[in-house]
Amino acid sequence: MHIATATPADVPALALLLGELFSQESEFAPDEAAQRSGLARIIANPDVGVILVAKDDETVVGMVNILFTISTALGARVAILEDMIVAARFRGAGIGRRLLDHAVAVVRENGGRRVTLLTDRSNEAAQRFYERSGFVPSPMIPLRLALAETGRAGEPTI
Amino acid sequence: MHIATATPADVPALALLLGELFSQESEFAPDEAAQRSGLARIIANPDVGVILVAKDDETVVGMVNILFTISTALGARVAILEDMIVAARFRGAGIGRRLLDHAVAVVRENGGRRVTLLTDRSNEAAQRFYERSGFVPSPMIPLRLALAETGRAGEPTI
Repeated sequence: MHIATATPADVPALALLLGELFSQESEFAPDEAAQRSGLARIIANPDVGVILVAKDDETVVGMVNILFTISTALGARVAILEDMIVAARFRGAGIGRRLLDHAVAVVRENGGRRVTLLTDRSNEAAQRFYERSGFVPSPMIPLRLALAETGRAGEPTI
Repeated sequence: MHIATATPADVPALALLLGELFSQESEFAPDEAAQRSGLARIIANPDVGVILVAKDDETVVGMVNILFTISTALGARVAILEDMIVAARFRGAGIGRRLLDHAVAVVRENGGRRVTLLTDRSNEAAQRFYERSGFVPSPMIPLRLALAETGRAGEPTI
């Protein structure tokens, strides 16, 4: 198993893997075309973020998405970690841990001073997984506003 | 009162205003040099985000920070809304509402399909303020990992 920065050739396999994640998360629903488009846009622009892919030989078995932004509190680059997933039949082998460690190293190499992620409140296994790597719960809560493609506000699109 | 896109000349006043916000939020502490640096980096790069400033004549009375990223779930640009603040003596006059409405319009004009923000769990007035504009609580919770400037993990830097 090895971890690499994703390339455009990885997009179809990564989009399928994301479908598995979004079927599981309560807030999202799979949309393969959207997933391909989002992945391709990130892979095309390293200033936006870095997608790491875990491969067993040439089979994509896991991924994580590191998105960059700027914090006015820290005066520095910070990262948002999304789309952490290991394919069901490859779980329990430490691939997630290796992906997470690699992602934190990428944030650090890029001058990032903080990593923030959102995880399902009901997914206690995920929370324990992140807390074992030093993540701590924030006293803040997320609110979302969905904007319809037609330009009207307040209509859920997910 | 008018709202405009912030310019480098607004950085000192905006940094002071952010100090007011970070004194109030439980997760952050003011650091004026960091605030200036973060603001300047965002203002210098419209792909990173847009900072809106509310001015009464030439006095800065409020701000909001719109950061752009890409969602793999939506296959589209999305925004993170941070640093929404109105100076204490100008509150209660609808400036926050105008800033928020303007920010959502900016997200829409830039092709954004979702706005996500984090607000203090204990700040019910802020939650009501956002919910009146259509924001809904997410079933997810935020976790954070602080990375020290020296490159060691897990040491809180905020």
